[in-house]
Amino acid sequence: MVLNGPNLNLLGQRDKNVYGSDTLEDVKNLLSGHFPEIDFIFLQSNHEGDLIDAIQSARTDTIDALIANWGGFTHTSVAIHDALELLTIPKVEVHISNIHAREEFRERSVTGKAMDGIITGFGTYSYVLGVKAALQLLSKK
Amino acid sequence: MVLNGPNLNLLGQRDKNVYGSDTLEDVKNLLSGHFPEIDFIFLQSNHEGDLIDAIQSARTDTIDALIANWGGFTHTSVAIHDALELLTIPKVEVHISNIHAREEFRERSVTGKAMDGIITGFGTYSYVLGVKAALQLLSKK
Amino acid sequence: MVLNGPNLNLLGQRDKNVYGSDTLEDVKNLLSGHFPEIDFIFLQSNHEGDLIDAIQSARTDTIDALIANWGGFTHTSVAIHDALELLTIPKVEVHISNIHAREEFRERSVTGKAMDGIITGFGTYSYVLGVKAALQLLSKK
Amino acid sequence: MVLNGPNLNLLGQRDKNVYGSDTLEDVKNLLSGHFPEIDFIFLQSNHEGDLIDAIQSARTDTIDALIANWGGFTHTSVAIHDALELLTIPKVEVHISNIHAREEFRERSVTGKAMDGIITGFGTYSYVLGVKAALQLLSKK
Amino acid sequence: MVLNGPNLNLLGQRDKNVYGSDTLEDVKNLLSGHFPEIDFIFLQSNHEGDLIDAIQSARTDTIDALIANWGGFTHTSVAIHDALELLTIPKVEVHISNIHAREEFRERSVTGKAMDGIITGFGTYSYVLGVKAALQLLSKK
Amino acid sequence: MVLNGPNLNLLGQRDKNVYGSDTLEDVKNLLSGHFPEIDFIFLQSNHEGDLIDAIQSARTDTIDALIANWGGFTHTSVAIHDALELLTIPKVEVHISNIHAREEFRERSVTGKAMDGIITGFGTYSYVLGVKAALQLLSKK
Amino acid sequence: MVLNGPNLNLLGQRDKNVYGSDTLEDVKNLLSGHFPEIDFIFLQSNHEGDLIDAIQSARTDTIDALIANWGGFTHTSVAIHDALELLTIPKVEVHISNIHAREEFRERSVTGKAMDGIITGFGTYSYVLGVKAALQLLSKK
Amino acid sequence: MVLNGPNLNLLGQRDKNVYGSDTLEDVKNLLSGHFPEIDFIFLQSNHEGDLIDAIQSARTDTIDALIANWGGFTHTSVAIHDALELLTIPKVEVHISNIHAREEFRERSVTGKAMDGIITGFGTYSYVLGVKAALQLLSKK
Amino acid sequence: MVLNGPNLNLLGQRDKNVYGSDTLEDVKNLLSGHFPEIDFIFLQSNHEGDLIDAIQSARTDTIDALIANWGGFTHTSVAIHDALELLTIPKVEVHISNIHAREEFRERSVTGKAMDGIITGFGTYSYVLGVKAALQLLSKK
Amino acid sequence: MVLNGPNLNLLGQRDKNVYGSDTLEDVKNLLSGHFPEIDFIFLQSNHEGDLIDAIQSARTDTIDALIANWGGFTHTSVAIHDALELLTIPKVEVHISNIHAREEFRERSVTGKAMDGIITGFGTYSYVLGVKAALQLLSKK
Amino acid sequence: MVLNGPNLNLLGQRDKNVYGSDTLEDVKNLLSGHFPEIDFIFLQSNHEGDLIDAIQSARTDTIDALIANWGGFTHTSVAIHDALELLTIPKVEVHISNIHAREEFRERSVTGKAMDGIITGFGTYSYVLGVKAALQLLSKK
Amino acid sequence: MVLNGPNLNLLGQRDKNVYGSDTLEDVKNLLSGHFPEIDFIFLQSNHEGDLIDAIQSARTDTIDALIANWGGFTHTSVAIHDALELLTIPKVEVHISNIHAREEFRERSVTGKAMDGIITGFGTYSYVLGVKAALQLLSKK
Repeated sequence: MVLNGPNLNLLGQRDKNVYGSDTLEDVKNLLSGHFPEIDFIFLQSNHEGDLIDAIQSARTDTIDALIANWGGFTHTSVAIHDALELLTIPKVEVHISNIHAREEFRERSVTGKAMDGIITGFGTYSYVLGVKAALQLLSKK
Repeated sequence: MVLNGPNLNLLGQRDKNVYGSDTLEDVKNLLSGHFPEIDFIFLQSNHEGDLIDAIQSARTDTIDALIANWGGFTHTSVAIHDALELLTIPKVEVHISNIHAREEFRERSVTGKAMDGIITGFGTYSYVLGVKAALQLLSKK
Repeated sequence: MVLNGPNLNLLGQRDKNVYGSDTLEDVKNLLSGHFPEIDFIFLQSNHEGDLIDAIQSARTDTIDALIANWGGFTHTSVAIHDALELLTIPKVEVHISNIHAREEFRERSVTGKAMDGIITGFGTYSYVLGVKAALQLLSKK
Repeated sequence: MVLNGPNLNLLGQRDKNVYGSDTLEDVKNLLSGHFPEIDFIFLQSNHEGDLIDAIQSARTDTIDALIANWGGFTHTSVAIHDALELLTIPKVEVHISNIHAREEFRERSVTGKAMDGIITGFGTYSYVLGVKAALQLLSKK
Repeated sequence: MVLNGPNLNLLGQRDKNVYGSDTLEDVKNLLSGHFPEIDFIFLQSNHEGDLIDAIQSARTDTIDALIANWGGFTHTSVAIHDALELLTIPKVEVHISNIHAREEFRERSVTGKAMDGIITGFGTYSYVLGVKAALQLLSKK
Repeated sequence: MVLNGPNLNLLGQRDKNVYGSDTLEDVKNLLSGHFPEIDFIFLQSNHEGDLIDAIQSARTDTIDALIANWGGFTHTSVAIHDALELLTIPKVEVHISNIHAREEFRERSVTGKAMDGIITGFGTYSYVLGVKAALQLLSKK
Repeated sequence: MVLNGPNLNLLGQRDKNVYGSDTLEDVKNLLSGHFPEIDFIFLQSNHEGDLIDAIQSARTDTIDALIANWGGFTHTSVAIHDALELLTIPKVEVHISNIHAREEFRERSVTGKAMDGIITGFGTYSYVLGVKAALQLLSKK
Repeated sequence: MVLNGPNLNLLGQRDKNVYGSDTLEDVKNLLSGHFPEIDFIFLQSNHEGDLIDAIQSARTDTIDALIANWGGFTHTSVAIHDALELLTIPKVEVHISNIHAREEFRERSVTGKAMDGIITGFGTYSYVLGVKAALQLLSKK
Repeated sequence: MVLNGPNLNLLGQRDKNVYGSDTLEDVKNLLSGHFPEIDFIFLQSNHEGDLIDAIQSARTDTIDALIANWGGFTHTSVAIHDALELLTIPKVEVHISNIHAREEFRERSVTGKAMDGIITGFGTYSYVLGVKAALQLLSKK
Repeated sequence: MVLNGPNLNLLGQRDKNVYGSDTLEDVKNLLSGHFPEIDFIFLQSNHEGDLIDAIQSARTDTIDALIANWGGFTHTSVAIHDALELLTIPKVEVHISNIHAREEFRERSVTGKAMDGIITGFGTYSYVLGVKAALQLLSKK
Repeated sequence: MVLNGPNLNLLGQRDKNVYGSDTLEDVKNLLSGHFPEIDFIFLQSNHEGDLIDAIQSARTDTIDALIANWGGFTHTSVAIHDALELLTIPKVEVHISNIHAREEFRERSVTGKAMDGIITGFGTYSYVLGVKAALQLLSKK
Repeated sequence: MVLNGPNLNLLGQRDKNVYGSDTLEDVKNLLSGHFPEIDFIFLQSNHEGDLIDAIQSARTDTIDALIANWGGFTHTSVAIHDALELLTIPKVEVHISNIHAREEFRERSVTGKAMDGIITGFGTYSYVLGVKAALQLLSKK
C-alpha cells in the first residue's frame, strides 16, 4: 500500500526545483516498472481522516507493508502518528525533497516517530528505495 | 567512499536492540556482496578532523559519491556541514536506527542539511539503500 | 451524545498497558449498563470535520450534554476548540489514560479549554464518571 | 470563489462582541449587493480536506480569484499552506476580528504566508475589502 | 483519606465565579452524604511538609485510597510528587475549577504525574467523582 | 490623517520587488484621486516621538480617522501602542508588503494590537483599502 | 502586620554590600521610630505554610494592612500568591535590594501579582516607604 | 528632576481603572504640596532622545536626584539604561500601576536595572514615595 | 551535621533500581562505621522551613561541616539556596542516584550553586564520600 | 560620515574599564591624525530619528562611506536597520568594547545585519580600523 | 585509567581562584600518594577523538575503572557520551570546580549522563574521591 | 601567529559570493605584502585539538599575538574558548564574511568571548585589519 498526503495529487506542478516534474501517475509507473511482481494499492487524499482510515484498513486487509508520503501532515498530525502505532507491518516514510534542508518546521517528523524508517531527498526515486526497504524489513520477519 | 563517524568501529557491540549485531566489517561485506562492481573506500574515525580531511580529499580524488554515517557528530558538527557544502558529488547520509524515534536531540541533523538525502532506520541495510540512492543520483547527472 | 476521536474505533487493540482491553463497543455497553435510562448517541470518527459537524449538530438537536474523547485532536485542534465555544450544553472531556503521565505533548489540552471539565486516567470508567459529571452539571442549570 | 473554514457556518451565533451578528448568508448578500456584476462561488466546510480540494479545483476551473477565511485552520494548517502555494490567481485572506488583538496563538497566520495579502478586523466588511483587493490584484496582471 | 492543599480552608470565600460558594465543611458533608458507608479522614494544610507527612502516613495506616486537591502546590511541588510515587493505593487528584481553562501556569500538573488520574472542573462535585473513581480503582485490584 | 513611519519617505527607492516603485507622493495622489471629497493630513517621520505627538494631536483636532503605516516601529514600539490605546477614532494599520510572508520578526505587530484592523500586502493600494475600511468604521458609529 | 520570609531573621549578616548591616530588630525599631502611633505585628518565618497562615489570619483579625518581604518565596510561591488574592486589605511588597538589578530569576515576582504595589531597592528604608504606601491606600478607602 | 516618558502627558485620560483620573498637572501639585521646600524640574516627552538628553543634563546641572516614570520605554530602551548608568545621583523609578500585575511584557524593567530602586502600583502617590526615597538616598551620602 | 530532605525517611522503600535498598538508618550506621571519631547530627524533614532552620542553626552551633541531600527541594528551593549562602562552613551536597542521568528537571541543582561541591550517583556511599570531602575542605582552612 | 548613537557624547566618562578614557573629541582628532586627507562629517545624537535622517541624507549627499557606532540602538532598532538597507555606500559598524564578551543582549547586532562588516573590541582604535576597512571597500568598487 | 580533557595539561596556570595551583603532575602524585597499590594509566589530550579512542581501548585492555575530567567537552560531546555507553566498567566523572556554581552552560553534563556518578567542586581532591568511588563501585560487582 | 580553522584550506573554492576567490595562500601573501617586517607563523587545521595545541604553544613560544579565524568552531567550541582564556597576548578573531548577516546560528561567537576583539565582513582584508588591531594592542602594553 502506498499512501500519499495532501497536495501530492498535484505532484509535477509544484515548485519544480524542489519536487521535479514527475506526476503521481509517473510514480505509480516507476514503481510498477521496478517491481512488476508487486501489486500496489495506491491512494492519495487531502483528508487526514481518509489517511487514518486507510492506515486502519491495512491492519485487517491483505496488506504486507506501508509506504507513505504524508505531505504537510508529516509535521503536525498526532492522529496519524497514533494510527501508525497500531499498525505492525513494515512502515516506510518517504519524502521527495530533503526535509532537513528546507524550512525549519519541516525538519521534525511527527509521523516518522511511528514509522520503521524514513527516506528523504531522492526525488520520486525515494519511493523506489522505500519499497526496497520494506521488502528488506519483510524478509527479516 | 563510505565514511563512518565516532564509535561505529564498535558496531555490533552497542545496544543490540537499537543497532543490531552486525559489525562494521559485516557492513563492508554486505556492500561488496550487493555491489561487487563497485570499489569501496571504507573509512571510520573517532576524530572530527579526520572526517573533514576525508570529505575534502573526495573533492580531488577519483571519488564518485559519498555515503556517510556521522554518528554522534550528526547533531552538532558545523565544521563537517561546511566541508560538505564544498563537495558536489552525490552525498547520502545513512543511519542504522531511526533518528526520529529516539532522544529528541538526535532528531535534528546538522550535517544532513548539506547532504542530498538521508536514509534512517533500516539497520545496516540503510547502507545498501544509500549506495542505491547514490547510483541513482549519479545516473541523473 | 458521546463523541470519540481518531483511532478510538480500535480501542482494545492499542497498547494494552496504557489503554486496557475494552473495545469501544464495551464502552457503549458499560454506559448503557450504568445509565439504562439515558439514550446515548454514540459517534466515532477519524475526521476532524465530522467531529466539528457533530458538535454543531448538538446545538440544534435534542442533545442534553456532550461527553467527548478527542483522541489525538485533543492537543492540536483549534477548530474543535472554536466549535465547542459555540456549544452551551454541559461538555465533559474524558481520557482513558492519564494524559499528565505520558509524553509531554499530551499534557496540554487545547480542546479542554472550551470544555466544562476533564476526567483523565480511569480507563473506560472515565466515560462513566463523565456521564455522572454531565448529569450533575445538568442538575445545576 | 469565497472559501470559509470551520465554524463559519455558525457566524452570527458565536461571541457577538467579537464577531458581530451577521450570518454567513448575510455575508453572501453583502457581497452580492456590493458587487452585483460578480458571480460568487461560496463554500463553507469544517473539513480541512474539503478546503484543500476546493483550492485545487480553483486551479483548473474558471475561477479568477480566491477570498478565504480559514477560521481555526489559519494558525495550524501546513497542508492548506502548501495547496495555496500551487495556486497563482489572486489570493486574499480575510478575518472578521483583528487576529493581532486576540489570543497570542491567533496572531500567527500559517496560511497567510502563501496568500497575497490579509485583511483583518473589519467585521464582515473585511470580505468586501477582500474582493476590492482581489479586483485590484487582477487589474495589475 | 482526603487531602487539601493551601488556601482550601478558605473555600467559599475565594473568587466565587471560579470556585463557587461551598466551604470545605460543605465538601465534607457532601462526601458523607454521598458515601455514608465510608469513613473519611479529612485533612487541610497550608504546609507542604504536612501534606508530605500525610501522604507518607497513608502508606502504613489503614488507608484505602487518597483523594487530593493540592491547590497551589499542584504546579510546583517535586517533593509531593516524589512522596506520591512511594504510595501504591489508588490516588485521585481533584480540582474545583478547570485548570486547563485558567492561567497557563495552572495547566501543568507536577503532582498529577504521580496520581492515577485527575478530575478537574466540576466544582465541589469533583470530590464526589474522585471518590467514585477511587472506588472503581479499588474494585479492580 | 495618514501617518507614515521611518523610511517611508524613501518609498519607491527601497527593494522594488517587495515595495513597488510608487513614492509616498504617489500614494498621496492615489488617495486624493480615489477620495476627492476627503481632506487628508499626510505626515511622515523617522522619529517615534513625532508619531506619538501626531497620534495625540488626533485626539483634540478635527480628525475623523487614522490610517497608519508604522514601518519598522510596527514590531517594537510599546510607546506607540500605548498612545493608540488612548485614541478612540477609527484606526487602520496598513502595510505595503505582506508582513506574514517576510522575516519572522515582521510577522508580529505590536502596534496592531491597538488598531481596529490591519490591511497588509496589497502594495500602495493597501492605503486605499485602509481609507475604505475607516469610512466603513465611521459609518457604523 | 509586617511579614518577613525565609532568612530575613539573619538580616544584617548576609552579603552586606547587597543588604546593608541593619538587623530585623533594627527594622522594627526603624518602623516604631517613624510611626510611633502604629501598633506593628512583626512576624518572620522560614516556613511557607506559616506565612500563608499569617496571611489568612489577617482576614479575620484586626489587621489594617500588610507589609511583606517574601524573601526567596517571592519568585516561586503560587500558594502565597493564592492566599494574597483572598486578602482585601492594602498589601505592599518590599525588598531591601533592587530585585531588577540582580540575578535574572529574582526579577519576576509571583507574589507581587497579588499585591497592591512593590517597593524595591531602598535598603531597610523600603519598609518605611511600604508603611507610608499602606497608609495612603487606607486613606483612599 | 522628575522625568516622564511617552503618553504621560495624557495622564488622567487613559484607562481610569488602571491609572486613576489625576493629570500630570495634578502630580506636579501633589509633589509641590508634599514637598514645598523642593524646587522640582518637571519634564515630559514622547521622544526617547529628549529623555536621554535630560538624563545627561542632570549630570552637569544642579540636580540632586532623579525621579522618573519611563512609560512604554521602561521595557525596551537599552539607550536610556545606558544613559542612567552614567548618572550617579539618586535615581528612583516610579510607576502608577503595578507593572507586575499587568501584561507579561510589562513585568521586566530594562531601565530599572540602572536605577537605585523602583516603586510601582500606588497611583500618583508613587511619585510622592519616590521623592521620599530619593531624599533618604541623599541623606545617606 | 547531615541534613536530609523530603521523602528520604522512606529511603529503601522507593524505586530500588534507582535508590538501592539501604534505609536512612543504614546510612547513619554506614557513616558511624566509616568515621567512628565523628559525632554526627542527623536530621530528616519533609518541611522546607525545618531544613532552613537547621541550616541557620549550623551558623551558631558547634557544627563543623554540612552534608546534605535536599531531595525534591534540590531543583526548586531559592530559600534553601539563600540560607546556604549565609553559611561559611564546608557544605557538601550528596545524591544517591546520578541526577544527570534521570529526568531533565532533576539535572539542575538550585541549592548546589551555594554548596562547595556535589557528589551524585554512588548510592548511599555518596554520603561517605561527602564526609571525606568535608574533612578535606576542613583541613584546608 | 561618522555617526555615533546615544550616550557616545559622554565617551570617556562611562565605565573606564570597558570604554577607556578617550572622549568623542579625542576620537575625532584620532581620525584626523590618521587620515588627514579625509574630510570627516562627525555626528552624534541620542535620537533614533536623527540617526535615520542622517543615514538617509548620506544617500543624496557627497558622502563616500559610513562609519557608525549605534550604541544602545545596535541591539534593538529595526528602523535603523531598514534605513541602512537603502544605503549602498560602504557601511562599517564599530564598537569600542567587545560586544561578544559583555551582557548576552549585547551580543546580537540588529543593525549589523545591514552593514558590510563589524569591528568590535579595540577601544577607540576601532574607529581607525573602521575607516581603513571603508577605504578598502571603496577601492574594490 | 584517568582521562583528562582539553586544557587540563595547563592545570595550575588557569584562573587560580577557580582551579587552584596544582598541576596535572601534582594530581598524578596526589593519586599515587593516596593509592600506592593502584597502577594508574594517566592520559591527557586536547583531541576529542583521542579521548574516544582511549575510552574504547578501556573495553579491551586490562582497565578496571575510568576516572575522567572531560574539561570543555563535558557540556557538548555527544560522541564521548556514546563511547561511554559502550563501556561497562565503573565510570566516575570529576571536576575541579563546582560546575553548578559557574556559567549556566557549564551546569549541564552531556557526558555525565553516561557515567555512574559525578564529583564536582573539591579541587584536585575530586580525583581522590573519584578513585574511592570507583573502588566502591568495583567492590559491589 | 595566524590560526585558521576547518575548511579554510579550501578558501577560494567555497561559495564565491560569500567568501571571494582568494585562497589561503593569497591571504599569506596579502599579509606578507602589507607587513613585510613581521614573521608570520601560519597554521590551518581541520582538527579542533590541533588548534588548541597551537593556542597552548603560543603561551611558551616567542609569539607576540594571535590572529585567528576559527571557521565552523567559532559557534560551538567551549574547549577553544577555554584555551584562549589561558593566553594573555593580543588575540584578534577575524571572519571573511559578516557573521551577523548570515544564518542565525553563525551570529553567536563562543570563541569570541575570550578574544580581545572581532573583525568580521571585509573579505580577506579582515586579516590585514586583524594584524593592525593586534599591533595597536601590542603598542598599548
